[in-house]
Amino acid sequence: MKETEKPRIILGIDPGTNLLGYGIIETLGNGMALKGTGVVRLDKYSDHGKKLFHIYEKIAGLIDGFQITEVAIEAPFYGKNVQSMLKLGRAQGVAIAAAISRNLEVYEYVPRKIKQSITGNGNASKEQVSAMLQSLLVFDQLPESLDATDGLAAAVCHFFQFSPRSFGQTGSKTSKGKPGNWKQFLSENPDRLKK
Amino acid sequence: MKETEKPRIILGIDPGTNLLGYGIIETLGNGMALKGTGVVRLDKYSDHGKKLFHIYEKIAGLIDGFQITEVAIEAPFYGKNVQSMLKLGRAQGVAIAAAISRNLEVYEYVPRKIKQSITGNGNASKEQVSAMLQSLLVFDQLPESLDATDGLAAAVCHFFQFSPRSFGQTGSKTSKGKPGNWKQFLSENPDRLKK
Repeated sequence: MKETEKPRIILGIDPGTNLLGYGIIETLGNGMALKGTGVVRLDKYSDHGKKLFHIYEKIAGLIDGFQITEVAIEAPFYGKNVQSMLKLGRAQGVAIAAAISRNLEVYEYVPRKIKQSITGNGNASKEQVSAMLQSLLVFDQLPESLDATDGLAAAVCHFFQFSPRSFGQTGSKTSKGKPGNWKQFLSENPDRLKK
Repeated sequence: MKETEKPRIILGIDPGTNLLGYGIIETLGNGMALKGTGVVRLDKYSDHGKKLFHIYEKIAGLIDGFQITEVAIEAPFYGKNVQSMLKLGRAQGVAIAAAISRNLEVYEYVPRKIKQSITGNGNASKEQVSAMLQSLLVFDQLPESLDATDGLAAAVCHFFQFSPRSFGQTGSKTSKGKPGNWKQFLSENPDRLKK
């Protein structure tokens, strides 16, 4: 992948059964910019089928509207019980299918991987991930809700995973300025440490 | 719903993670005819994402190719562990999304309901359901595999559930010829009893 390539527009999704959080970034070479974040409330639909319908419509709409080129989802593999896992799996499956229907690749990341990628700490809190994202993407306001953070974080994690730098194809393998250095971030932003 | 309405073409799906069975029936009024059955082997794909892709492609292809008007899925709500339930949920979610993408309604039936609807016995064996389907649909050969039976059974169950007769809108509420009378079927076909 060369720096001269077309911009990539990455949609990150956290497809829960009650809330669907998402974030969209545009990247070019090693740079990235925030295009949007949002949260879809699904708890207002008592009918599970309606939830799935709205997940599909929303994701397909975002893909078409933002001309998404890649989709990353946060995909936890644990759950309280088989019933909730079936529902979570369906929500994930519908989100994945919306991407498949647009001929897009879907990349999955477990929460620990996403936190590790962004903060350097696989056990970072949602607030810590959000603060690091705010620093990386230089946006003034936090996403409307922390629930959008996980989706946005999945998009950024995917970018770090498949960026020119991560493949070392720009010739730079130095850790200078490496994204996701939580310790460095904290030392520069001690106020962000969760009390 | 009146007898003069357009034919309905129902796709029934049993979306497993290793095998996807399906059956298609065309119905008009109280009558129904078999359009096709099949099994998609998914166990040859070691990659879970590829499985989901093929489920989507297959279901979307069937919907388009057969001009499906309604989709019924067999949706079990039990499983061995949370991991397998997540995968099953994803397979179901992808199949549901393929229907949503074509603006079709999806109806879910648990296995017990399907067996009850077709044979009159919620605990009927797969062989018993298959034999009853063979009698109801008057097709010479059994589906290529018993694995296709569950999908076909879901389609027939849905037809019985939402047929003119089941709504009593044809004025006929008699049980004469009522589909799904397993006892009557067995008395007429004693050789079909599973040994």
